[in-house]
Amino acid sequence: MKNLVGACVFAQSGGPTSVINSSAAGVFTEALNQENITAVYGAQHGIKGILDEKLYDIGKEDPKEIEMLKYTPSSALGSVRYKLKDYTVDPTDYNRILEVFKKYNIRFFFYNGGNDSMDTCNKISKFMAKSGWDCNVIGVPKTIDNDLMGTDHCPGFASAAKYIATTAMEVALDARVYNTGLVCVMEVMGRNAGWLTAASSLANIHGHAVDLIYLPETPFDMDKFIADVKAVCDKNDNKCLVAVSEGIKFADGGYVGEFKASKTDLFGHAQLGGVGAILANQIKEKLGIKTRAIELNLMQRCASHLASKTDVEEAFEAGRHAVLAAVSGQTDFMVAYERKSGDKYEIEYKLVPLSICANTEKAVPAEWITDNGTNVSKAFADYALPLIQGEWETPKVDGLPRFAQLKKVFVK
Amino acid sequence: MKNLVGACVFAQSGGPTSVINSSAAGVFTEALNQENITAVYGAQHGIKGILDEKLYDIGKEDPKEIEMLKYTPSSALGSVRYKLKDYTVDPTDYNRILEVFKKYNIRFFFYNGGNDSMDTCNKISKFMAKSGWDCNVIGVPKTIDNDLMGTDHCPGFASAAKYIATTAMEVALDARVYNTGLVCVMEVMGRNAGWLTAASSLANIHGHAVDLIYLPETPFDMDKFIADVKAVCDKNDNKCLVAVSEGIKFADGGYVGEFKASKTDLFGHAQLGGVGAILANQIKEKLGIKTRAIELNLMQRCASHLASKTDVEEAFEAGRHAVLAAVSGQTDFMVAYERKSGDKYEIEYKLVPLSICANTEKAVPAEWITDNGTNVSKAFADYALPLIQGEWETPKVDGLPRFAQLKKVFVK
Repeated sequence: MKNLVGACVFAQSGGPTSVINSSAAGVFTEALNQENITAVYGAQHGIKGILDEKLYDIGKEDPKEIEMLKYTPSSALGSVRYKLKDYTVDPTDYNRILEVFKKYNIRFFFYNGGNDSMDTCNKISKFMAKSGWDCNVIGVPKTIDNDLMGTDHCPGFASAAKYIATTAMEVALDARVYNTGLVCVMEVMGRNAGWLTAASSLANIHGHAVDLIYLPETPFDMDKFIADVKAVCDKNDNKCLVAVSEGIKFADGGYVGEFKASKTDLFGHAQLGGVGAILANQIKEKLGIKTRAIELNLMQRCASHLASKTDVEEAFEAGRHAVLAAVSGQTDFMVAYERKSGDKYEIEYKLVPLSICANTEKAVPAEWITDNGTNVSKAFADYALPLIQGEWETPKVDGLPRFAQLKKVFVK
Repeated sequence: MKNLVGACVFAQSGGPTSVINSSAAGVFTEALNQENITAVYGAQHGIKGILDEKLYDIGKEDPKEIEMLKYTPSSALGSVRYKLKDYTVDPTDYNRILEVFKKYNIRFFFYNGGNDSMDTCNKISKFMAKSGWDCNVIGVPKTIDNDLMGTDHCPGFASAAKYIATTAMEVALDARVYNTGLVCVMEVMGRNAGWLTAASSLANIHGHAVDLIYLPETPFDMDKFIADVKAVCDKNDNKCLVAVSEGIKFADGGYVGEFKASKTDLFGHAQLGGVGAILANQIKEKLGIKTRAIELNLMQRCASHLASKTDVEEAFEAGRHAVLAAVSGQTDFMVAYERKSGDKYEIEYKLVPLSICANTEKAVPAEWITDNGTNVSKAFADYALPLIQGEWETPKVDGLPRFAQLKKVFVK
């Protein structure tokens, strides 16, 4: 516990979300208010911005634009996918980071991201402690995948879940509009954890929408899938809406998205379309029913026009609490959400050691996966519904959102 | 001009939109108020519901649920793609329709759809006039494609345009988040008219979002496309966002979506993915830059959570005006929008002969297509921006929209 005085740097990493910039707004707003923080910097493209000494002076930004970050999708500072080697393998990056931290007197470091980013954060934290340079390091969680350990849920998940459930409700109505059959396969992100795909089940809260849900937690069997769809079609005039995770795997561990029978083409070209298109193709071939594959693609992680108010506010607070923790002398932690017990949804912000968040993945509990691997239980809805409550009022100009426009002035 | 007394039937046809049910609400609300309309029926699955005598008794519906139709996507009564043969070729369907009209004393017929549907409406109108059965026939326009002749714009277009522009703004931020290149190709609906793809240009109103826009009105050249993208990439760190219509064609008239080099696979299977995926694949092969294809798919026509308030209200009024016209003795017309001159956007509802709307298509004016076929002019924004103004407040339950739930009681 060291109460430090100096500059802080904040950086964003990994795939963006609809609310990752709300955490940035939380960090910036709180850091700019703290007496012990002498300057607030934002690194361009995550850890790369530190290595390349590309730091924005956040003190130069208009507070109104910082406020607008709350509903501006994507990572405003730019993101990166860069994995730090172990210090023992190659200390180059670590020494460079230390050099930059000393040059700018960085005493507070905030890293905003998912599993890989918390690994980076953890490595930097441990290195700073060892190097003797006092710097309080706090991770700010972020991932639509919702797979970080140590927290009830992750900032960004709820807004993606709200988008997926709303879209599934709308698509369900559209896909059943004709007097002819249609099997619609909706592909959802989530390489190893099925939280987002499970969120499609929320579309069934107000009535029948999604028929079958396949998570990566359950081994996928193509024959069983065809039979599952056929059973739904037999009951429902050949109409069926399937939600499927991009990361579903066969029992042998191979991704269904790499299923050979549909993926090899005449010229050895990489074939077009993801797992949704592959499954739709299989249904068409095997059952002879018209199909449509829908990939929710980037929209599920950037549709901030449908962000959950709960998510926006919690993400902001997660950023604020990172600053409060660092200023009060804490280091080597990630901010996490703890859900209070009781009927009313409420969370507390806590700190969990970075080491338990780095590179571990939290899966959907096996007992929540029901109907022979084609649905999720009410326990999931009880968990997820409170998170998607409320809508954020995005200011509109000319009928379109007005997102934050940062000046991005580099520190000299 | 005959002032009739009797029942009315309303039917929906063709691909649905976010606001097609708002027109249904307009027809139902006004028809239920009219003394000369003795019963209000809704046909299941368009003209099929009349042929099969599947008529819902709208008088049995809760007015609150009818009000909720305003923001309920997809065609609430079910839609159909069914082309009536010419009467001279086969009069069977016509005689059957007349039989049903006589049985239920149908004196007012409202058909809601696009070009093909106005053709159906026109044929029925002409047949009724010839047959001597007094029935006032009025078409209610609907199409996200915005390609109906005789009207300034079409109900449904503005909401799809608002979805496309908003999504393009969000995706533009997400697709440029990394420090590595990405060419993102966004595929938009519109088989022969580029109105929807042109709407992606509205995303540039608040800053740089979409780089290149390809409409079906301009012949497509693959080599020029690769060169266009390369020029953008050279200037912008290999980052480029392309919006492309599903209906772009080569100079010889062949759809790019059927481009052979990417579409034939080893087993003769229909290949996965549409024109966006094909173009993305070409860029990857020719320029070696990472790509992502995004298909806006059904969402662009059913994302009622992002409906334009202007569109919702106009679609409702279009339905109401159809009833008012029919009751006042008009027949053989489609309701249309006429934009008033002046700075302030305002429209008047008028009637245009069905014959001029049936089977004709209105394209984006050639003089609005600029930058060597890769952009649209300010004239397009002046035309389209007023249409996407305002957001409709959809009531939420548990953080998700509550759509209309009709009882759908069949007429005995």
